[in-house]
Amino acid sequence: MTQPRFEVQPIGTVESPLTDPASAPKQGDEGAPDAWLAFEPTVLEGLEGIRVGDEVIVVTWLDRARRDVLRVHPRGDNSRPEQGVFTTRSSDRPNPIGLHRVLVLKIEGRSVEVRNLEAVDGTPIVDLKPVLSADIAER
Amino acid sequence: MTQPRFEVQPIGTVESPLTDPASAPKQGDEGAPDAWLAFEPTVLEGLEGIRVGDEVIVVTWLDRARRDVLRVHPRGDNSRPEQGVFTTRSSDRPNPIGLHRVLVLKIEGRSVEVRNLEAVDGTPIVDLKPVLSADIAER
Repeated sequence: MTQPRFEVQPIGTVESPLTDPASAPKQGDEGAPDAWLAFEPTVLEGLEGIRVGDEVIVVTWLDRARRDVLRVHPRGDNSRPEQGVFTTRSSDRPNPIGLHRVLVLKIEGRSVEVRNLEAVDGTPIVDLKPVLSADIAER
Repeated sequence: MTQPRFEVQPIGTVESPLTDPASAPKQGDEGAPDAWLAFEPTVLEGLEGIRVGDEVIVVTWLDRARRDVLRVHPRGDNSRPEQGVFTTRSSDRPNPIGLHRVLVLKIEGRSVEVRNLEAVDGTPIVDLKPVLSADIAER
């Protein structure tokens, strides 16, 4: 079966003091810095309603990852046996989509500052979603 | 600034009794049925290590969504004022990426059965990730 393919159009870019993927924290809660999400002018309407204090999921395209890798040592630790990439959070994977749960700190024009983002400077942003309340009535 | 674009290559397909996006539950925990994830033979190595009982995040491409929508009534409820799509979980959004947290029920060959998936039959799967432990030492 041949699958169709789809085109991702970034909606913005990460601006961060992190520049080296190899030395970046593995996850946001492992010492990642605050960073800015700079959105494209064309999608600003989609941000209406965002508030300081919101918890959101930033979806990125990890453009420096390898897409031809299916097995990795978890967390790059060679002492751990290799596993399939889909059982790890490795950025190397067929579609290098990153998920980052962050807190909104500040909103200025088309930029949103967030806490603890481990994506490196220049990483394309492809979506932003609210963290869902466990209470269905609050959705 | 012109952003580069990226190509998503599906790694599998959802097989579900749900066929109508309009009548599908909004979220997995709102009455969604069990479903199968049928993976492409070329990515099976990436699943090594997956186990029954694992909690995983299925990342889909909601191929029946509209990509030209930036504001929606939350949950399709016209009595609620419109908001930016990035503050909702609407499937209509510039990059219609779906996130679905599910439990692995069964593994058979290249198919994985999961509990409570609200994606409709035929939805392309683009990634699969483990739910992260809150305990960094367990990652």
